[in-house]
This record gives sequence, structure tokens and C-alpha cells, in this order.
Amino acid sequence: MFSFELIAFDADDTLWHTERLYAETQKKFTQLLANYHDPKWINDRLYQIESRNIQHFGYGIKAFALSLIETAIELTEGKISSKDIQEIVNWAKNMLNSEIELLPYVSQIIPQLSSQYPLMIITKGDLLDQETKIKKSGLEKYFRHIEIVSQKTSESYEKLLKKYSVNPSRFMMIGNSLPSDVLPILNLGGGAVHIPYEITWAHETAEQPPHDHAGYYQLKNLGQLPPLLERIMQNKE
Amino acid sequence: MFSFELIAFDADDTLWHTERLYAETQKKFTQLLANYHDPKWINDRLYQIESRNIQHFGYGIKAFALSLIETAIELTEGKISSKDIQEIVNWAKNMLNSEIELLPYVSQIIPQLSSQYPLMIITKGDLLDQETKIKKSGLEKYFRHIEIVSQKTSESYEKLLKKYSVNPSRFMMIGNSLPSDVLPILNLGGGAVHIPYEITWAHETAEQPPHDHAGYYQLKNLGQLPPLLERIMQNKE
Repeated sequence: MFSFELIAFDADDTLWHTERLYAETQKKFTQLLANYHDPKWINDRLYQIESRNIQHFGYGIKAFALSLIETAIELTEGKISSKDIQEIVNWAKNMLNSEIELLPYVSQIIPQLSSQYPLMIITKGDLLDQETKIKKSGLEKYFRHIEIVSQKTSESYEKLLKKYSVNPSRFMMIGNSLPSDVLPILNLGGGAVHIPYEITWAHETAEQPPHDHAGYYQLKNLGQLPPLLERIMQNKE
Repeated sequence: MFSFELIAFDADDTLWHTERLYAETQKKFTQLLANYHDPKWINDRLYQIESRNIQHFGYGIKAFALSLIETAIELTEGKISSKDIQEIVNWAKNMLNSEIELLPYVSQIIPQLSSQYPLMIITKGDLLDQETKIKKSGLEKYFRHIEIVSQKTSESYEKLLKKYSVNPSRFMMIGNSLPSDVLPILNLGGGAVHIPYEITWAHETAEQPPHDHAGYYQLKNLGQLPPLLERIMQNKE
């Protein structure tokens, strides 16, 4: 009978809210610079600076804070006060200390699935921040493996699957990002479930694969996952 | 016959120079603030702010940069220019992009040892930065396992040893930091080799264990490691 060797979940915006935190901070940032530029211009320039800085800083809140500071200096032509820059550093600390809010269905579905399948978390971002969130979530015990990675590419997933001796055809990844959680896995011949979050960071957008692409599924929420997994297992039997 | 199941190396200031980079940047920082305070006061205050921020930001260059910015704002009572703050952000990028300089003996000893023992890297810091340095070092292929962790405590080492099913008594850790590489391992009953680096960050200082503490060794450089390992194996035979 067909069975999954490993079912892996993205964490940020798949198990708990995260992008909301960035969006709230970014709103405060546009208000901070409101005397200099309109929000659209600020957001566009921030996005360019963030994208350019990913090669240096990677993903996560510390990288975001450094890009906010750089953007603020550039867009005010150096007129931003250091009091305001300290405010940006404080936002970063608040983001890192904020409470975890699980997404709907997570607190029921994850324990339930963990009794049926080996589960894993594969998440990217700041190491300490991700570890802290996993601990705070109370979900750690349901996951057999936890991997925090600097990027999610076919290459990095392939390495992980080898490390755990998992056949891609018996692997399923669930996440909110097409370029990070779905496309690289389909590329390896694995299964991927896309559950879009209410906000998508521009950097994480991509064209959807065709709806009939082998192994590709789209769901509205995590509550729909157990029946989907059962259907897949029955069909492949 | 006694044999090691795993020999693990710290990376920064054990395999390649790192603290030097921080020290150079910190020197530039004291010059930047020279009109406000003397170097000792700046360094002391920076160390306090860095230590306080570790709980939020963890270790690594991005955390260092955010603490430099915070210290600069505080010590100039907000008079630091945003041009100077941008300069600090640029220092961080330069640190992240700097070339790897291996420490003496590393390029000979690591390949040689990898043909005799399973080797591992256990390092802490920014995920992307550590991965990039491991790649740049050209040493990646000699290590069976690589783990980048947010902190090095007995608890975190114990988790890793369990993960790889390694008995602490057959595990050896080599590194430049007493509190991070040596004491937690001795605490678990493993072997630990301390190879001091030319500079020690105040946060990584600790009292030395007694010289006759079981499993504790101190060497001057990595070139002395192979004969030590052989001696240990012969004595335990």
C-alpha cells in the first residue's frame, strides 16, 4: 500500500501568522516616512533594497531591519533622525518577541496527522527566531525532524531528502509559498500542497503550476489536508 | 579497539579567522565615535548592548551590526549622522563578503583526518553566513555532517549526539571557545580539545577546567591534533 515516508510543513504563514507582522511594521515604516514619500514609493524602494540585500543578509527579521534602516536613510537623503532609526531597531525586537498565533485548524490537524505519518518542519529565516517560534508554538513534539534552512531550492530539498533517505515520490511538502514550498518539490517529483496565506510577500510570488500537474494540490486551509492525504493514498494503492 | 564515532570542529576561529574581522570593524567603530568617547568606554558599552541583545538577535554579523547601530545612537545621544549609520550597515556587508582565511595546518590536517575519522562541523551564528563560509572554505566535502546551531549548550549538544546516535564517550569536540566548545562537552562526558585563538570575545571567556579533567586537552594549533588523537586511542585500547 502507498504511504508517505515524510510529510513536511513550512512554518511561517503555514502553521502560524508571520507575514502580518512584517506588513504591520511596514505600515508603521510608511507612516514614519510619510513626510518624504507616498506609501507606494516607499514600499517599492524597500522591496528593491530587500531583494538586493538577500544575497548578503538572507531572510528574516534582522535582515528586514537592516533593509528598513538602509531604505529610511536613502529615502530621506540622510535626514532621518537617529531616534527614528532606534525606533526601527525596536520594531525588530518587538517582532522577534511577539506571540505565536497558530493558523486555523493547526492545533487539531498537526497532532492528528503526527499519529499517522512522520512529520517534519522545513523553514527558512533567522536560526534563533525560527527555533524560538517552534518552541513557543507548542508543536515541537509532533515533528520528527526540524530543519531550518537559508533557502528553499530543489538543490537544498534534494540534500535534505538524501539526508533522511526519503524517496521524493513518497514525500509531501505543505506550504504557502509557490517558489519556496511547491515548485522545487514538483521539480524533484515529489508532492506539494499549496495553501495560500492572506498576504504574499512579493518575493514569494510565482506563476502557479497547471492544475493537473502531477503531485500538485491547492487547498484553502489545513483542515482540508487529512481527507486529501487519504484520497492520495487510496488512489495510489 | 577504542575509536571515535565522531570528531566535531567548531568553525569560526577554529578552522578560519573570524574574530579578527569583528575586531577590525570594532576598531573602525571606536574611530567613528572618537569625538564622543574614548575607545575603552565605547567597547565596554558595545559589549553590554551586544550581551543584552543576544536574547533577541542571537549571534553573528547581522546581530553585531544592529548592536553597533544601537550603541552609536546611544553614545552620541542621537547625534550620529545617518551617513555614519549607513557606513555601519556597509561594514556588515563587507564582513559578510570577506574572503575566508584558513588557520594554520587546517588545509593539511582536515583532509588527512577525514580519511581516518567521521568529521563534523558544529558552528553557531547566522545561517546563511555560516553556510557561505563553509562553501568558500573548500572544506565542505571533508565533513560528513554540518550543523549550524543558535547556541552551544550541553542541552543542544546532547540533542545533536542523540540525532546522530553517537555516544558522548566516543565523541570529541575541537574549538577555540571554552564556554561553547569545551565545557558543555566535558559536562556530557565527551572529549574536548581547546585550541585558543589569538583574540577571544569577552562573551566567550570562561574559567579553564582543571588540566587533569577527564577528556580535556589543550593544544596550541591544529597540527598537534593527529598525534593527540592517536595517543588517546592507544591509551584507551
